Amino acid sequence: MSLPLKASRIAAEAGKGAADPDRFLGLIGGKLLATEDLFRRHLDSDVPFISDAGEYMFRGGGKRMRPALLLLSARLLGHDSDEEVTYAAVVELLHTATLIHDDIIDDSTLRRGQATVHNVWGNSRTVLLGDWIYTTSMKLALEHDRLEVIRRLCEATLRMTEGELLVLERLGAPDVSVEEYFDIIDRKTAQLFAAACSIPALIPPSHDHERLALESYGRALGLCFQLVDDLLDFTGSEDDLGKPVLSDLKGGKLTLPLILLLPRLDAKRRRLIEQVLEDRAFDRVEPSDILAVVDSEGTLEEVGELAVTQADRAREALDAFPASLVREALEFAPEFVLSRRA
Amino acid sequence: MSLPLKASRIAAEAGKGAADPDRFLGLIGGKLLATEDLFRRHLDSDVPFISDAGEYMFRGGGKRMRPALLLLSARLLGHDSDEEVTYAAVVELLHTATLIHDDIIDDSTLRRGQATVHNVWGNSRTVLLGDWIYTTSMKLALEHDRLEVIRRLCEATLRMTEGELLVLERLGAPDVSVEEYFDIIDRKTAQLFAAACSIPALIPPSHDHERLALESYGRALGLCFQLVDDLLDFTGSEDDLGKPVLSDLKGGKLTLPLILLLPRLDAKRRRLIEQVLEDRAFDRVEPSDILAVVDSEGTLEEVGELAVTQADRAREALDAFPASLVREALEFAPEFVLSRRA
Repeated sequence: MSLPLKASRIAAEAGKGAADPDRFLGLIGGKLLATEDLFRRHLDSDVPFISDAGEYMFRGGGKRMRPALLLLSARLLGHDSDEEVTYAAVVELLHTATLIHDDIIDDSTLRRGQATVHNVWGNSRTVLLGDWIYTTSMKLALEHDRLEVIRRLCEATLRMTEGELLVLERLGAPDVSVEEYFDIIDRKTAQLFAAACSIPALIPPSHDHERLALESYGRALGLCFQLVDDLLDFTGSEDDLGKPVLSDLKGGKLTLPLILLLPRLDAKRRRLIEQVLEDRAFDRVEPSDILAVVDSEGTLEEVGELAVTQADRAREALDAFPASLVREALEFAPEFVLSRRA
Repeated sequence: MSLPLKASRIAAEAGKGAADPDRFLGLIGGKLLATEDLFRRHLDSDVPFISDAGEYMFRGGGKRMRPALLLLSARLLGHDSDEEVTYAAVVELLHTATLIHDDIIDDSTLRRGQATVHNVWGNSRTVLLGDWIYTTSMKLALEHDRLEVIRRLCEATLRMTEGELLVLERLGAPDVSVEEYFDIIDRKTAQLFAAACSIPALIPPSHDHERLALESYGRALGLCFQLVDDLLDFTGSEDDLGKPVLSDLKGGKLTLPLILLLPRLDAKRRRLIEQVLEDRAFDRVEPSDILAVVDSEGTLEEVGELAVTQADRAREALDAFPASLVREALEFAPEFVLSRRA
């Protein structure tokens, strides 16, 4: 299997500078630690299950991409207060709430290499825990009295929920269009990235053109992130991902590599994919059969190129800001997203 | 079965005046209709499932108690604008979101005499629909730029979720204490009543003592409501309730009539109740056996009296306001709650 190599090649092509991520950590390192602390403290309650599950999720870790982006965007705008730490914890809480409901819906067994919350504590409690975390994130966001921030968070949450619903509407369908796919990933992923990056521009003094530039940056980066996520379902390893490969297809979800592929296949090879969609299992078809078909038409490379296009678009949006180390860090984020293996 | 008669007697005792509810409708009738309209319009989206399920839930109806209480409280404070209509729709949306998640958790078949949303559309979509409605209610609440209202709604939502989680923690347990019971019903029911009644006091000009009085009123009324709800699970009819009697016990939930009863029973009769809790079914015990045991010790009457106590407490809280037709309407609400059959 040469697919992971191909993904690396795409990442290498995208990496235009030889950026050293460690240089960037100093920009927001202290605030990221403060965010972790705030995030953890808000996963606590006098209801024992909430604090147990909260601690469990906290230990599960995560890339904390959305908080890091929010803190970098705040720094780019010259903000330096506790306020951005609050919102960084808020977006991670919001993201966590969506994950635990999504895991119930997909009946995912593993998340970040550990058993999913509903697999440990059951669906009923986990539905309520998600509700509780959604509301906790909103409550925390209220601390600095900015209605515009709450509005932006509500918009992002509505779009995420709609995105996940649209996925369910088309579960098992072999005819999802490219337009539908982009509409879905925009709602379910890119909107929260856009909110995370643009919320600092709702803290004065900030200008509308800065907010719009950061919205564009976050949205393109979010699309890039989801395109890579969908690629990794084909090219990643179970060890890196913390979940089996081809999980999406097995779950009945057609993502862009297969959406582009299907119209190009003869009936026999098309049937292989349809059978997995129908069975929601690899009963009649082996994962390796699917990977061989996918490899034959080069759609993974095409999707990789579309991810690179979004990465470029994200970087271009930063032209609105003068050169600085913070801007370099934000410019590096798309490279990080393109090169990630999990 | 004489139990419904007993419930009526309690209600009759509680009804201190011969209030005619029709007199009160004129106070808020127009605004209730506007609330219905707003509520319906906010159960709509470009995602087809949301609008289908929204229409279905709207048609299912409901008592709209929380909006009516909010509108009456607003009127009591002399408010007369669109703002209270917004918040009335908000509390009904919030209530609706909790109901559809609770129905998944309890796996309830019927709600208001029609199939529950998850029974029609499945659990996955319904989890997301609940999330969407929670967020929609928050978004609508933001329309009038009052952070204090959003804070109060977040608090109520957190308490409701915690209340439901505490119910789950103690599911099947035969040793729930009276204190635990009151803590649970305060969180899961009384907090939203308190929020609905006190939110109008967050619209200026209002005074803190008015807000506190309306909080007390709503909280006591909410406790009364839940005590009656738990009584109706024993005394109601399947036709009136739109769901089978003894649903709570069958679902593993011990409510106050049984919490008071259990310590008074000999081992043999105690065993009857424990068997249903263990089986989560009427396999070894008939519902009529349970009702006979419950009838033997008079705990339904005791719970009825506790409901009357809360009704009195609610009415007393209104002493903070001068006599008026609106105050009479709010004084009548506890009677309505005590006499309801569904």
